[in-house]
Amino acid sequence: MDFARLTGLIAATYTPLNERAQLKTDVVPAMVDHLIQQGLRGLYVCGSTGEGMSLSSADRKAVTESYVQAAAGRVPVIVQVGHNSLDEARELAAHAAQCGAEMISATCPSYFKVTSVDALVDSMQVIASGAPELPFYYYHIPALTGSAIDMPEFLQLAGKRIPNLVGIKYTAPTLFEFQMCQSVDGGRFDIVWGCDEMLLGAYATGAQAGIGSTYNVAPALYRNLVDAIEQQKWDEARRLQLVSIEMIRTIGRYPFHPAMRCVLGFQGFDVGDCLLPQPKLSEQQAEQLRSDLQSIGFFDWAL
Amino acid sequence: MDFARLTGLIAATYTPLNERAQLKTDVVPAMVDHLIQQGLRGLYVCGSTGEGMSLSSADRKAVTESYVQAAAGRVPVIVQVGHNSLDEARELAAHAAQCGAEMISATCPSYFKVTSVDALVDSMQVIASGAPELPFYYYHIPALTGSAIDMPEFLQLAGKRIPNLVGIKYTAPTLFEFQMCQSVDGGRFDIVWGCDEMLLGAYATGAQAGIGSTYNVAPALYRNLVDAIEQQKWDEARRLQLVSIEMIRTIGRYPFHPAMRCVLGFQGFDVGDCLLPQPKLSEQQAEQLRSDLQSIGFFDWAL
Amino acid sequence: MDFARLTGLIAATYTPLNERAQLKTDVVPAMVDHLIQQGLRGLYVCGSTGEGMSLSSADRKAVTESYVQAAAGRVPVIVQVGHNSLDEARELAAHAAQCGAEMISATCPSYFKVTSVDALVDSMQVIASGAPELPFYYYHIPALTGSAIDMPEFLQLAGKRIPNLVGIKYTAPTLFEFQMCQSVDGGRFDIVWGCDEMLLGAYATGAQAGIGSTYNVAPALYRNLVDAIEQQKWDEARRLQLVSIEMIRTIGRYPFHPAMRCVLGFQGFDVGDCLLPQPKLSEQQAEQLRSDLQSIGFFDWAL
Amino acid sequence: MDFARLTGLIAATYTPLNERAQLKTDVVPAMVDHLIQQGLRGLYVCGSTGEGMSLSSADRKAVTESYVQAAAGRVPVIVQVGHNSLDEARELAAHAAQCGAEMISATCPSYFKVTSVDALVDSMQVIASGAPELPFYYYHIPALTGSAIDMPEFLQLAGKRIPNLVGIKYTAPTLFEFQMCQSVDGGRFDIVWGCDEMLLGAYATGAQAGIGSTYNVAPALYRNLVDAIEQQKWDEARRLQLVSIEMIRTIGRYPFHPAMRCVLGFQGFDVGDCLLPQPKLSEQQAEQLRSDLQSIGFFDWAL
Repeated sequence: MDFARLTGLIAATYTPLNERAQLKTDVVPAMVDHLIQQGLRGLYVCGSTGEGMSLSSADRKAVTESYVQAAAGRVPVIVQVGHNSLDEARELAAHAAQCGAEMISATCPSYFKVTSVDALVDSMQVIASGAPELPFYYYHIPALTGSAIDMPEFLQLAGKRIPNLVGIKYTAPTLFEFQMCQSVDGGRFDIVWGCDEMLLGAYATGAQAGIGSTYNVAPALYRNLVDAIEQQKWDEARRLQLVSIEMIRTIGRYPFHPAMRCVLGFQGFDVGDCLLPQPKLSEQQAEQLRSDLQSIGFFDWAL
Repeated sequence: MDFARLTGLIAATYTPLNERAQLKTDVVPAMVDHLIQQGLRGLYVCGSTGEGMSLSSADRKAVTESYVQAAAGRVPVIVQVGHNSLDEARELAAHAAQCGAEMISATCPSYFKVTSVDALVDSMQVIASGAPELPFYYYHIPALTGSAIDMPEFLQLAGKRIPNLVGIKYTAPTLFEFQMCQSVDGGRFDIVWGCDEMLLGAYATGAQAGIGSTYNVAPALYRNLVDAIEQQKWDEARRLQLVSIEMIRTIGRYPFHPAMRCVLGFQGFDVGDCLLPQPKLSEQQAEQLRSDLQSIGFFDWAL
Repeated sequence: MDFARLTGLIAATYTPLNERAQLKTDVVPAMVDHLIQQGLRGLYVCGSTGEGMSLSSADRKAVTESYVQAAAGRVPVIVQVGHNSLDEARELAAHAAQCGAEMISATCPSYFKVTSVDALVDSMQVIASGAPELPFYYYHIPALTGSAIDMPEFLQLAGKRIPNLVGIKYTAPTLFEFQMCQSVDGGRFDIVWGCDEMLLGAYATGAQAGIGSTYNVAPALYRNLVDAIEQQKWDEARRLQLVSIEMIRTIGRYPFHPAMRCVLGFQGFDVGDCLLPQPKLSEQQAEQLRSDLQSIGFFDWAL
Repeated sequence: MDFARLTGLIAATYTPLNERAQLKTDVVPAMVDHLIQQGLRGLYVCGSTGEGMSLSSADRKAVTESYVQAAAGRVPVIVQVGHNSLDEARELAAHAAQCGAEMISATCPSYFKVTSVDALVDSMQVIASGAPELPFYYYHIPALTGSAIDMPEFLQLAGKRIPNLVGIKYTAPTLFEFQMCQSVDGGRFDIVWGCDEMLLGAYATGAQAGIGSTYNVAPALYRNLVDAIEQQKWDEARRLQLVSIEMIRTIGRYPFHPAMRCVLGFQGFDVGDCLLPQPKLSEQQAEQLRSDLQSIGFFDWAL
């Protein structure tokens, strides 16, 4: 399949919710404008960050539509359609295509674990067939799905059987497998990095794009990091990656995505709390988080 | 909530599918008649055995309706409605009530893990509220959900906040926690055992009902086991439980549920293969399985 | 090998230490007299409870000698000799035989995990050969060793290659595998139960002995439990097992073995704190534990 | 503590054994000469590669002595002394100092897991005190020990309480934590990378040394990799790291360390098989491995 590889920083977007845990998409256009203005080159919608799995299929479609409309073709929208039910996932893929999304992506099921590369290829084939004209990225995130199939083997086999497979969103710290994937079949696949706190290492091995949640809240930091890497200013790149690591450790002292939603609120984007089963921060925790971030200078360098 | 406790053997039913992985509910009435005739006292629909998670919501509703109609009030139908999206789960609960199911049950989400008893209670409260007039059983199966919240603590807290919570389908080998759950709050909860190969031990601690998949294929074996226990014929009970363990080990040499579907086929109920991501047995494997079962006498004592 | 099966309650003994984490065996004779007087029928020395792995080989030998001398043949002493180094383990086995212990037992290594039944048989063969005249029990405790080899397969294979293998100390909640082990090769192996909080279930499947740590501190409770089981007073047996579960949950709110050592101290046996890396209870925690135990009546029914 | 940081490639050495699983140190001098000639800058003895845990304490001492004598001060020898018994570990540390080793290192215990940073500091303090004049590296390898304490927190706390703590041998793919460790307390700690297949990424974040097993068999490959990195020839560095990844995947299709021992044999160093519980390759497997390695050109570029 002919497709344009992803490059640069792609935001794994949050799904805005109101205080009754209902969709509240009116904030989406301003958020998308902001992200594009900040240099983000794509939007990954309804992934782990966007809590696609915690949304009803109807709401996943509505969120997708709001992001596609807000992006208006300025940057590609990649829609994550993974679901325990492959029928539902395929239907979500078809919807993404119909409403104008540029690409689709999917995790494997998480309730029943995937136990062989064949089962993974068969499963992804079902999903990808729902939008055969769109490029498809398998979303590898074993910490959440519980399935750790060998990715180079998956690419070799799936490359023959899924015509629109173009790559992987690779979210695991095993950089050697990530690098190996980049070389499979002459380097034809686009392997995109998914661990923001290891972006420097990933670029060293050849990465050219990252999809992540913390790019939403500190785009300037990561822009500078990518610039430093491209200019081969390694000391500066290390310094900036270290700032990112400290930021992520600071946020990670709280439940991560609930805390990230607070940080977006601090920056003027009221996206509400996470859906259950994820918790929400108390007001006290939110204030403590703000203070923690101030102490590392976050509000000076994030945007 | 006033409710009748479950007793005896309850079948975790399979979802019949055709060779294109589509619902084929025409075999349900005969299967339900057979199970009732064989002494089963309830039907647990769309659980792990029934691959509820792998079905679309529309198909989950259709399967539920077919079992409710086939049961026709002769035995209670318990509908498992757990879903990564609590909105979808609540909607499935409401549907179960509307179509006449007697009880509902639900796992917690499996993609985002549940990290506190509070989050589990909050999550189950959303689901149970979809069918407030039906008894609700939490479905505890940590091997598949990845969440292992303390169950006695859950009961104590949820008992105050979920009016229709009546018990747990307990699927884990930790018999001590199962026994503890039976005693919480004066013994008001109905804790139903979910590991067929440990039914004897569970009855010894006070269990009065079991929900399981292998009751479908060997109801006579388990009827005799429960009879032996109730008549305090312990040597006979041990002998029969051991036969069950050997049977489960025999089937478990193959991918379990795919093999169980073959066994149902051997017994005249063509329920097709599992949905992806579970594999299916090759014809050769199926023949080997039949031969393995013959060698332990399965076809003599199962029904 | 001709041997007498274990029966009844066997204490997994603690290793007495002084405040500088050195052996202090002077308390052993009184403790052994007490345990025998309380009806214990054997002593399992240097297991997980006795922190054999955390002791130097020299200290393991010294502890073993002190228990063998104190028992003086009144009850069998089983010495746990498992070690990451099979050479050290074999040497400990030989020492146990030389100093008069009745039986030996061993875990597999825990640093390198055992990945096949063959490797487990080969490893245990090395150890068991150190004391070929003593009965040998494999100590199965996958939660600590990280190795979960199928035990019936192990018995079948090891039974042909390790002449002095007589059974398993089975410490895992998977009661079905425990029951299966009892039946391997015509029931020739002695499979001893290791989870105190599931003793009732284990007896229901045919267990005739248990090795555990909490028998040290509440022998009267467990004696009554075993009596109730043998007299088929099931309601009483359930009541007593439930008391044991509550006791273990109470102690388990603290780091378990450090808390157990405090309980022994409350009962007049000063065995000191655990060795590192296990923590020790603060004085405040110890006082809270005492109060927690009082609130469940522990000091009235334990002895 | 004043110490020289490690730089470049350090071999995690194998422990030569004869066919009866006994030490056979006569091959050590030639192997050490070879490694030094090939540019290796240090020897890490009795680690996971050297199966320190599987050796008796007496044999650990003998292996240590043979490597120290063979190195004769040309490169530093770091002796891994971790043990389930901290007393044994401290004694091994003292021995390492007495026999002239330059540095010590230790894992935490693996049987009882370490559950707090305090317990880890307390444990390492015991070991490090055995050789207070030698620099001490904590050996972090959570995949084998089962303990995953936060390393920056460990450094902050241990830095105040263990005078001779100088760094970490960091063997885990979590590059962000590795980078964070490098910056703790003004960068005073020497954090050495332990995953050969991710050396490029580690150097990108600031690593200056790696300790690994595959440096033994392919020193030329890794020398060229480090040279390319230092000369900022990134395409070449990526190419070489990819060759290393393919080599490790090739060897890793077999049980890893048993296969590595065969590779050493192919290169003229007969180090025998692994100790139990690790398996050994059959002759057929060894021949297949040789053929696999030939097909990737291993024998052309390894040395």
